[in-house]
Amino acid sequence: MHYLDEIKWTEDGLVPAIAQDAQTGQVMMFAWMNRAALQQTIERQEVVYYSRSRQQLWHKGESSGHIQKLKDIRLDCDNDVILLQIEQVGGIACHTGREHCFFKRYEDGAWKVVEDVVKSPEEIYGE
Amino acid sequence: MHYLDEIKWTEDGLVPAIAQDAQTGQVMMFAWMNRAALQQTIERQEVVYYSRSRQQLWHKGESSGHIQKLKDIRLDCDNDVILLQIEQVGGIACHTGREHCFFKRYEDGAWKVVEDVVKSPEEIYGE
Repeated sequence: MHYLDEIKWTEDGLVPAIAQDAQTGQVMMFAWMNRAALQQTIERQEVVYYSRSRQQLWHKGESSGHIQKLKDIRLDCDNDVILLQIEQVGGIACHTGREHCFFKRYEDGAWKVVEDVVKSPEEIYGE
Repeated sequence: MHYLDEIKWTEDGLVPAIAQDAQTGQVMMFAWMNRAALQQTIERQEVVYYSRSRQQLWHKGESSGHIQKLKDIRLDCDNDVILLQIEQVGGIACHTGREHCFFKRYEDGAWKVVEDVVKSPEEIYGE
């Protein structure tokens, strides 16, 4: 069977994808892929997601320069989740300018921001 | 605002949750939570998911004994993904008896099983 056909896509033709830093193990971000995104990710060896808000392919880092070099792709037991090992160029995965997206920690009934911005979004994306 | 109200739940009232081993950084599994699941996870300090197939709360490890002790909870920049740091009791998160669920690696156009079963499902769940 073609590797793309083995994946259990959602009704919308998507699969959730988790990106993990191959060196540190840090979970960097979570996004979605469609068939074309996964195929392009493998071809380019750089991660391409599918943006549900923009409804188009999203070559991660295309505007920020913070591309994700592909190191490994895993599929889970149920064939419906992808785990990517990546090298995060620039060391920043989050659009807020933080290393990764999971910077709010649950503490005593509230979400507390516990990580600093590495580079401001203005600096990354321009004014 | 109540911490549960800050989360952007899907139309079905769910949020994706990634469970990562707090010691090794290994991404163990991916599942979903509803409000009750997250609330119970915090109260019990053991991970409770929402099973979409069984349409009910799923106290992870209830039948296998492989419960997940909660170490940390993070929310992402968009408030729509949860990252859990856990201690995996028994060292097995996957229902196939493997350490974690992401045991199929993409290699040359195919998904190849690259990790061994630690304990057979029969041994874990009984015949």
